[in-house]
Amino acid sequence: MRAVDIIRKKRDGQTLGSEEIDAFVSAATSGTWPDYQLSALLMAIVLRGLSSEETAQLTAAMVHSGRRLDLSDLPGTKVDKHSTGGVGDKTSLILVPLVAACGAVVPMVSGHGLAHTGGTLDRLESIPGFRVDLSPSEFRQALAKVGCAISGQTSEIAPADKKLYALRDVTSTVDSIPLICASIMSKKIAEGIGGLVMDVKCGRGAFMKNRAEALTLAELIVATGRANGVRTEALLTAMNTPLGQSVGNALEVIEALETLKGRGPADVETLSVTLAARMLRLSGQASTHEEAEKLIRAAISSGRGLEKLGRMIEEQGGDRRVVDDYSRLPSAPSRTIFPAERSGYVSLLDAKLAGLASTALGAGRSRMEEAIDPSVGIVVRAKLGAFVRAGEAILELHYRDSSRLDTAVALLRNACRIDDAAPPQETLILETLG
Amino acid sequence: MRAVDIIRKKRDGQTLGSEEIDAFVSAATSGTWPDYQLSALLMAIVLRGLSSEETAQLTAAMVHSGRRLDLSDLPGTKVDKHSTGGVGDKTSLILVPLVAACGAVVPMVSGHGLAHTGGTLDRLESIPGFRVDLSPSEFRQALAKVGCAISGQTSEIAPADKKLYALRDVTSTVDSIPLICASIMSKKIAEGIGGLVMDVKCGRGAFMKNRAEALTLAELIVATGRANGVRTEALLTAMNTPLGQSVGNALEVIEALETLKGRGPADVETLSVTLAARMLRLSGQASTHEEAEKLIRAAISSGRGLEKLGRMIEEQGGDRRVVDDYSRLPSAPSRTIFPAERSGYVSLLDAKLAGLASTALGAGRSRMEEAIDPSVGIVVRAKLGAFVRAGEAILELHYRDSSRLDTAVALLRNACRIDDAAPPQETLILETLG
Repeated sequence: MRAVDIIRKKRDGQTLGSEEIDAFVSAATSGTWPDYQLSALLMAIVLRGLSSEETAQLTAAMVHSGRRLDLSDLPGTKVDKHSTGGVGDKTSLILVPLVAACGAVVPMVSGHGLAHTGGTLDRLESIPGFRVDLSPSEFRQALAKVGCAISGQTSEIAPADKKLYALRDVTSTVDSIPLICASIMSKKIAEGIGGLVMDVKCGRGAFMKNRAEALTLAELIVATGRANGVRTEALLTAMNTPLGQSVGNALEVIEALETLKGRGPADVETLSVTLAARMLRLSGQASTHEEAEKLIRAAISSGRGLEKLGRMIEEQGGDRRVVDDYSRLPSAPSRTIFPAERSGYVSLLDAKLAGLASTALGAGRSRMEEAIDPSVGIVVRAKLGAFVRAGEAILELHYRDSSRLDTAVALLRNACRIDDAAPPQETLILETLG
Repeated sequence: MRAVDIIRKKRDGQTLGSEEIDAFVSAATSGTWPDYQLSALLMAIVLRGLSSEETAQLTAAMVHSGRRLDLSDLPGTKVDKHSTGGVGDKTSLILVPLVAACGAVVPMVSGHGLAHTGGTLDRLESIPGFRVDLSPSEFRQALAKVGCAISGQTSEIAPADKKLYALRDVTSTVDSIPLICASIMSKKIAEGIGGLVMDVKCGRGAFMKNRAEALTLAELIVATGRANGVRTEALLTAMNTPLGQSVGNALEVIEALETLKGRGPADVETLSVTLAARMLRLSGQASTHEEAEKLIRAAISSGRGLEKLGRMIEEQGGDRRVVDDYSRLPSAPSRTIFPAERSGYVSLLDAKLAGLASTALGAGRSRMEEAIDPSVGIVVRAKLGAFVRAGEAILELHYRDSSRLDTAVALLRNACRIDDAAPPQETLILETLG
């Protein structure tokens, strides 16, 4: 099977067969096709698309390019959640221990943040001592002992995705729904899970700005998961304004702990409980969504979720005492407020600009090799729809470096708007698939 | 100007500015973009297209990637002809000396054949001693002395095209009308010509099978030439059946010499005279097409065209005596006929299959590094539309190696068809542009 023939076929809009997709992925993994042939095919895929079957096959081939975790010795169906990335989304820190507290096993392989979105691993790394580089055997051991673990990707998971993603990044071939789907799903399927709940974000702060596009991705993800033997469901959720009240690593850990204590912001709790209940049902620990949600809420009120997070922190080398003593988390030396220029209702609080401002303060990276500052970030004092008086704080900025503060404030000027009338209330969960 | 941004722009179907196109071409020439970025952009161009302005700009940038011959010290407008490649098309060997005999300067930079089409340089190399590797100064000297020369491309001409063509060949990005146009025209414009007649072949034996596509290419070539200061005209000509009666290098040289002696096949003479007359008018040596055609025909009947070809052969190191003594040209040791299976009219004589059969005999190359046999080829004894009796020859095959003969005969079985009724007569010149 010659590379040029496979490239030509996709260039001409034809459907690739499974042997052709396998040949492409194994050539990417082994390096037997030169990069210029890989990138030509990637561009043809971006512009010609992949069918649902081709996407499922590409995903399967990418899973097989590395090792798929075998967790069959652990009891029950292993479940996980994944999100396409939002601002202020700390739900993983909440739902992973909640679901595990209800008896399911949650082997979450997660990533660092990039651009304006935060990353679960970055948040966890703000806990002193917490390790996100568990070896496969440590990961398995943590799962057996605690029932949940959150760690980074090892080089054994979907190496084809690693190779192709690096190439896509420098050839403008990232923006393709089938390629995005295969990249996400190959890594999730390789975790050895049997159930997955996908949170596809949609809006100003999401990679998918457009609802139709987000829906297409969600549908493709569900089909791809199922074609690969993983019970997959998806939610389409709004990401126009930051989720919850904090953006920034240690600040988000505190908000997650507060939510596990039953004192979290309503949107964070709602989304966490909804996603967790779906995971629990997929795991077989509950037979209806209502039952699952009751169990999850009970794990909050009883404190068993919080207890589970404490055990997970301890197992992964972190200082468990942060659960009750937030002063053990890094804290920024300086704070300032971002005030309302006039009185009125907060009618815009743009998630993307808030995320970029938080990144500018040092909470995130614009390139993978940059270091992040776990202490800095933004606290939302007046959420979207709230009434503020002129001069009152919309946001509170936690910062270290005042030159970075200036950049953040400049970004935030376009992020907020005050109007005389209250904006229409936003729906958080836009659509449910599966 | 970052590569990824230029790639993204074309990926999204936007028009590239001249600085962006210049950046791409100069990066291809200098190697500052890695090949995987060049090939991603090439694929985006194949699928998104280039406007007429972008194509003209790409062509100009490719010309500027190397040296443009300065022939301004030679009198008059320099003119040339180019064809997209056909089977049995020996017109260059006829029209170059005819136009030069009428007083115009013809600096033809030509190529070798590939796949099923012959190459002008291959035909000339069948003449003992003939050199197609003139240095730029030898080329210029030949033009000054004889008024015409036909030689191969030097590395100084459009190096960006050389680089990009090699990459297109291995990434399935050859089939793009704007890229084909820029590749052809950059090399022609770099010859230092002021006028060009383009012969765009269309049909079974041409790269463009489809008339609408061929027309699009012809229009783009005319626009690109004019935008770059070259008076350009184009003909769309039929290439369903071989042009003339011979396919194969020495055999085609003989047919060209016969045509210059006024004894050539009608189709070869018509096309040669038409193209030559257009060149002559573009050069300014004639003011109307009728006048130009009269001058060209006179150059045949007076023998001045033949005399000019003899001088060109001599100037380029070849044995001029071939003009009158065909036995000095290589001749194949064996001949056989390809007979008609039944009596009737030749209703199909497929140019592509005939070209492939000739290549199989050794007259052409399937890869650039292969050697060719100048003596072998095919003589058409019964042209399309002729009546043959069962067992009579349709073709005469000149061969050296009988195992190659078997391959050629197998190809020819599908190339010929005999019907009871005569086929409709084919129009040779389908369309005239400019």
